[in-house]
Amino acid sequence: MKRYLKHATILKMDGTEPITDGGLCMENGIITYVGAHREDIQAEETIDMKGAIVMPAMANGHTHLPMTLMRSYADGHNLQDWLTNYIFPVEDRLTKEDIYWGSKLAMAELVAGGTVFFNDMYWMMEEVMRAAEESGLCGVVARSVVHPSDKEPIENSERVAEALRLLEICGRKNSNVKAALSVHAIYTNTEKALCYMSDLAKEHGALMHIHLSETLTENEDCLRQHGKTPTQYLDSLGFFQNPTIAAHGVFLNEEDLEILKKRGVVIVHNPDSNLKLGSGIAPLAQMLEKGIPVMLGTDGASSNNNLNMFEEMHLAAVVHNGAAQDPIRIGAYDALKMACRSDLLGFDSGQLLQGKRADIIAVDTSRPHFQPMLNPVSNLVYSAQGGDVQYVFSGGELLYRKGEFFKVDLEEIYYHVNNCVKRLYQ
Amino acid sequence: MKRYLKHATILKMDGTEPITDGGLCMENGIITYVGAHREDIQAEETIDMKGAIVMPAMANGHTHLPMTLMRSYADGHNLQDWLTNYIFPVEDRLTKEDIYWGSKLAMAELVAGGTVFFNDMYWMMEEVMRAAEESGLCGVVARSVVHPSDKEPIENSERVAEALRLLEICGRKNSNVKAALSVHAIYTNTEKALCYMSDLAKEHGALMHIHLSETLTENEDCLRQHGKTPTQYLDSLGFFQNPTIAAHGVFLNEEDLEILKKRGVVIVHNPDSNLKLGSGIAPLAQMLEKGIPVMLGTDGASSNNNLNMFEEMHLAAVVHNGAAQDPIRIGAYDALKMACRSDLLGFDSGQLLQGKRADIIAVDTSRPHFQPMLNPVSNLVYSAQGGDVQYVFSGGELLYRKGEFFKVDLEEIYYHVNNCVKRLYQ
Repeated sequence: MKRYLKHATILKMDGTEPITDGGLCMENGIITYVGAHREDIQAEETIDMKGAIVMPAMANGHTHLPMTLMRSYADGHNLQDWLTNYIFPVEDRLTKEDIYWGSKLAMAELVAGGTVFFNDMYWMMEEVMRAAEESGLCGVVARSVVHPSDKEPIENSERVAEALRLLEICGRKNSNVKAALSVHAIYTNTEKALCYMSDLAKEHGALMHIHLSETLTENEDCLRQHGKTPTQYLDSLGFFQNPTIAAHGVFLNEEDLEILKKRGVVIVHNPDSNLKLGSGIAPLAQMLEKGIPVMLGTDGASSNNNLNMFEEMHLAAVVHNGAAQDPIRIGAYDALKMACRSDLLGFDSGQLLQGKRADIIAVDTSRPHFQPMLNPVSNLVYSAQGGDVQYVFSGGELLYRKGEFFKVDLEEIYYHVNNCVKRLYQ
Repeated sequence: MKRYLKHATILKMDGTEPITDGGLCMENGIITYVGAHREDIQAEETIDMKGAIVMPAMANGHTHLPMTLMRSYADGHNLQDWLTNYIFPVEDRLTKEDIYWGSKLAMAELVAGGTVFFNDMYWMMEEVMRAAEESGLCGVVARSVVHPSDKEPIENSERVAEALRLLEICGRKNSNVKAALSVHAIYTNTEKALCYMSDLAKEHGALMHIHLSETLTENEDCLRQHGKTPTQYLDSLGFFQNPTIAAHGVFLNEEDLEILKKRGVVIVHNPDSNLKLGSGIAPLAQMLEKGIPVMLGTDGASSNNNLNMFEEMHLAAVVHNGAAQDPIRIGAYDALKMACRSDLLGFDSGQLLQGKRADIIAVDTSRPHFQPMLNPVSNLVYSAQGGDVQYVFSGGELLYRKGEFFKVDLEEIYYHVNNCVKRLYQ
């Protein structure tokens, strides 16, 4: 289907200025024209985007989608208490059905907030994959491997088996949901497990997804055990020789940043989760100065408590200014850019350029908080809300328009989510 | 008019648990019933609030409403450059018309985000008062007095004359917009001016509104000049003997907090402005521990860049956890409470209790980011957006319902705001 969006303010996110009264044409899932509005463009559907900002669909670089089922559960406890006595017992009860419906809910939330891409780490990931394919989303799924003891050989691990099954399934089909490998973190895996998974990644040419230096405790324990920071420790194992996405990076020193830069590791900055859970404030400005590729992420809904990338952009743009007492530490454009890095998940997307995938959102600017429109980028980053998103296209397909979902049935999702919740918390 | 809201989840904000399937009745601007839903209550209008959270309308404790006209103007400059070369020149061109339409825009934004109360400090404040009365909002207006030199006696100051005129106007009429006095800050006023204004406040029994310890520079300069912190300096002048609302308080030490507590000073915490402008992170947890009354505020839209109290709540609830590496430093309920302190502006409101003013909002919980509803308070503070507000009542009067404004004409506001902007930035 050929669609033409006219009279929009267009942010191509290629470093150029916004196009005012722009036009964007998409056909067969690809952007075929972007520039000044042209009256001569004919399409099956033309949408008047006057008063809207058209920009790339966003990419959530680190999340645990099924955890929507634990949204706002047991807030207000210390981290260890919260995990051990509340989250883990619920996670132990999770069934495939829970994973599926939790993911469907998460994906509806992502879409309604302008996010089409995700990078997910959890378990029973075939359910996440199925939910994503049905919902029209694109992303990367990985079975989080936890292997804290070598008493049982990792080769026999169910978790590794699931991880390999995912890779195998993805190899067979041409899906917009790809598989990666994941070790949960250094503190939940033995050195042998880390090396085994790293070797598997090399063997399969797979992307690796890991939590890295999320808390000070993780760093201190690693220094005590190995005399190295987590980054230096992993690098000493050759772990970063595979393409890696590392979530958090709250505690990284200059040498760590050098290593991550040299190895091409992608960092996912999750400001809301890091703040809410009291992890700390990541050295974002230093990462960007160093030229490290950075994505934004929400982490799971249980530690956020939503999947709203507008909030992450906003936080990324203001928190570091405040913490460093420097009003120009992180710029609005940089924050917006970090929210659109679907290219770092391996998709030919993230910029509105001819020939790229048509992953596009339109943001309504008609509400008072967008007026006057002196600077579209600043208004988006500092003032917009997730709910301002009006249209969402994934590969040219319309997923969402003004509150209406075209690929999922919200009532059905809520019905099943409520059933899951009743069972999980009974 | 008698209205009944039924089947709501009601947060009375009096420390009790949420009421599920609650009912709230209002008549002649006052809450006449709040509790479990009752089928026998008859009203002229009954609204089914199933799936909504009903809570007090919020109060924005510190703002400069007309500055919506400078929303997102010249972001990305150093503070002094931004103020001197961008904001001040525009402010010099402001006319009464600008103040009026900038305020109307601000008030539409406040209402759409569930805020009925404000505490404003700017100039040409009769225009702000007029805009608020027309818009159905309640608040406090004060002419910000700046008097950096005693060459011209403060008694002859136009600014003081405006401040007194406001008090006089308010004394004459029974308005929901009250007048206060304001000195902008210690660094923009001579000691003589501070004392003069303090005496005026005593004479008129007026509330005082001031910026206090917003930046480290303010503190360092004050220590150098007076050997005291701004709080200690003002206290030594007897300034806090009048009821005072002090905005920011980013740099307050233990002794300052003791003084503010003893004097009953209200602090307004403006996390978004403090972060974005690189001012710093205020000692909120210490204020609350000390028992200091704290409100939340947005500051002006030019340093935020919106008037969204949901963002301030969210920031207040997460930023201090992150900065202190303590996940339970600020609780969700505390953040929500701070957003509803209209009582600190002198209104008999801020809690949904029988006999209180009917200043009420209803928040839609039907969107994915509110599901499942394991904890209404956490969902409101960590996950909600300003745009989730569905109904706004001010003194029992309906101001807003699902995008529709009943007291203002949004198109008219936008038309005039655009004209103002064209002139201001030509």
